Amino acid sequence: MILESKIRTIKWEDNVSKVIDQTLLPYEYKYIEIKSIENMYESIKNMIVRGAPAIGIAGAHGVVLGAYECEKEYGNDIIQFKDNLIKKSIWLKTSRPTAVNLMWAIDKQIEIIKKFEGCNIQRLIEELEMNVKSLEEDDIKINKKIGENGAKLVGKSWGILTHCNAGALATVGYGTALGVIRSAYANDKTIKVYANETRPRQQGARLTTWELIEDGIDVTLLTDAMCSYFMKSGYIDMVVVGADRIALNGDTANKIGTYTLAICAKYHNIPFYIAAPKSTIDVKIKNGNEIPIEIRDENEVFKINGKLICREGTKTINPSFDVTPNELISGIILEDGIISGDYEKEIKKLFNM
Amino acid sequence: MILESKIRTIKWEDNVSKVIDQTLLPYEYKYIEIKSIENMYESIKNMIVRGAPAIGIAGAHGVVLGAYECEKEYGNDIIQFKDNLIKKSIWLKTSRPTAVNLMWAIDKQIEIIKKFEGCNIQRLIEELEMNVKSLEEDDIKINKKIGENGAKLVGKSWGILTHCNAGALATVGYGTALGVIRSAYANDKTIKVYANETRPRQQGARLTTWELIEDGIDVTLLTDAMCSYFMKSGYIDMVVVGADRIALNGDTANKIGTYTLAICAKYHNIPFYIAAPKSTIDVKIKNGNEIPIEIRDENEVFKINGKLICREGTKTINPSFDVTPNELISGIILEDGIISGDYEKEIKKLFNM
Repeated sequence: MILESKIRTIKWEDNVSKVIDQTLLPYEYKYIEIKSIENMYESIKNMIVRGAPAIGIAGAHGVVLGAYECEKEYGNDIIQFKDNLIKKSIWLKTSRPTAVNLMWAIDKQIEIIKKFEGCNIQRLIEELEMNVKSLEEDDIKINKKIGENGAKLVGKSWGILTHCNAGALATVGYGTALGVIRSAYANDKTIKVYANETRPRQQGARLTTWELIEDGIDVTLLTDAMCSYFMKSGYIDMVVVGADRIALNGDTANKIGTYTLAICAKYHNIPFYIAAPKSTIDVKIKNGNEIPIEIRDENEVFKINGKLICREGTKTINPSFDVTPNELISGIILEDGIISGDYEKEIKKLFNM
Repeated sequence: MILESKIRTIKWEDNVSKVIDQTLLPYEYKYIEIKSIENMYESIKNMIVRGAPAIGIAGAHGVVLGAYECEKEYGNDIIQFKDNLIKKSIWLKTSRPTAVNLMWAIDKQIEIIKKFEGCNIQRLIEELEMNVKSLEEDDIKINKKIGENGAKLVGKSWGILTHCNAGALATVGYGTALGVIRSAYANDKTIKVYANETRPRQQGARLTTWELIEDGIDVTLLTDAMCSYFMKSGYIDMVVVGADRIALNGDTANKIGTYTLAICAKYHNIPFYIAAPKSTIDVKIKNGNEIPIEIRDENEVFKINGKLICREGTKTINPSFDVTPNELISGIILEDGIISGDYEKEIKKLFNM
């Protein structure tokens, strides 16, 4: 059984990208319209839209917005149009460096641009728009498959700990890690979710509590370093988180703090799962050391809701992601099924390598 | 070499207890006067004064304040005076349940009350006042011995990670874990300190950054779950934290999140040390399972600087401490030296058991 989510994070409508402004949650629930590729770049960078699968879709939307702009400028010259749109699209890929879904989805659009034959710019734009629709639909379908696959791992009345937000708000509208939880909850209303706050940006506190309460699922907020106390005390039966990039050997980049959680899960013999679409796997990257880690603004650490939380003059470093080595991962839940053990072998099989 | 701290957290002066109000830091640095045992109870409970050794001293101060009140009420009757003062003192011990130093210091005062012979109440009060002075002086002396012992463990230019605040602000004026850091810094100005934020109450962000900057020591703030990223990346050579209660077998209760840190240190083969005065050891408690863990108000998790950080209606549980099992502890740095290995044997030796 599948539980629908009421939340639709990003949608293409009336030739604009409509997204829930996630910087306002949990205080305000509001859509904003993104009308230019430049605006999309800023929206991704500033995390108005965030979450690996969602920023993939946002990237694809951005290319269409870029196409509208290029049409105005190079409306009579398909070669100029294509060249400039590809340039803009490649630039959009640099809005955030770690989540590979962004690159994957924009590359899908670039492929359409490159392959397009003929001179009808309008026709090419329609193809890009159609691809956006199909990526959106696929995202929900894929999430539901991930949810179904992952739900089979969940025992009766289990406590499930998650980090950051890999939910409806991180995708088009169902979720990867929270997709597993949604599907498990559809079968068993007694499961309990434990959500790590996820400092510095508090996506767990701000977004995961918001969306689970929105959908009526039981959620308990923990501060990040409490995880091992709750594991030892018997509250947690399973950890499931999303992913921003998975290397060929299964090493997984995800929100900073995931690696800490994985180490603690291992210490307590609690299964630790990644839930992600296949598009998160970057087969060009052999292992986690090669995944670029975004370093974000120091003020994300220093300030909460605009107010300084430490002494003026303190230093910090703010890596947005960390890498969990494959040895700590019990399995990766994909739309095709769950892989575990020799990840490189399994991933090569999946990609016919 | 010993580096003095400019900070004096708690002092007995003009017949009142003067303490830095730590709920105002890092925004405001201000002493308040505590003039009654009831007021001391609230000040400890609400963490105006906090840190295991500091609340020990505060407890001893509280007994003297209680003695002034009892003198007014039972000034002519030493038996009534003693009975009622002991009752008040036992009640003061319940202001916080985990840190054993509170009980230890109040018991020292109760012992003086019980042992006192004769009828001169004024004379008894003078003895309690003198004991306060000697506990304060001992605390600084003991901290400096801990610092000296611990500093020998620190290598050239090491990065030292700490959690919560076990500094001058947690003691009379030098610190246990930060005492080790102060002593190490006196010998080597190139050491670097990494301070965990320590949610929910952010003592690392609010207090440790404040006091290290006050004393000119290099400090970098990390959010709690970043620890393993920085360990793996080679920033951290050693972890040192304080303690609220140490069981006979070496299991150690300290601020929530310490256990997570210890697990991550073990995974990265980074030495993990406890620094504490002998008065933190509770030989009556066989192992960590028997240490009472304070559960504090949910709003400490839900709110930061008065503002909600999650959706209204979220649940939480807020244990203020966790227990790190002895197997994760590389050594316990005491004023008498460093113990490690078979903690029970070593502790029994220390206490002539």
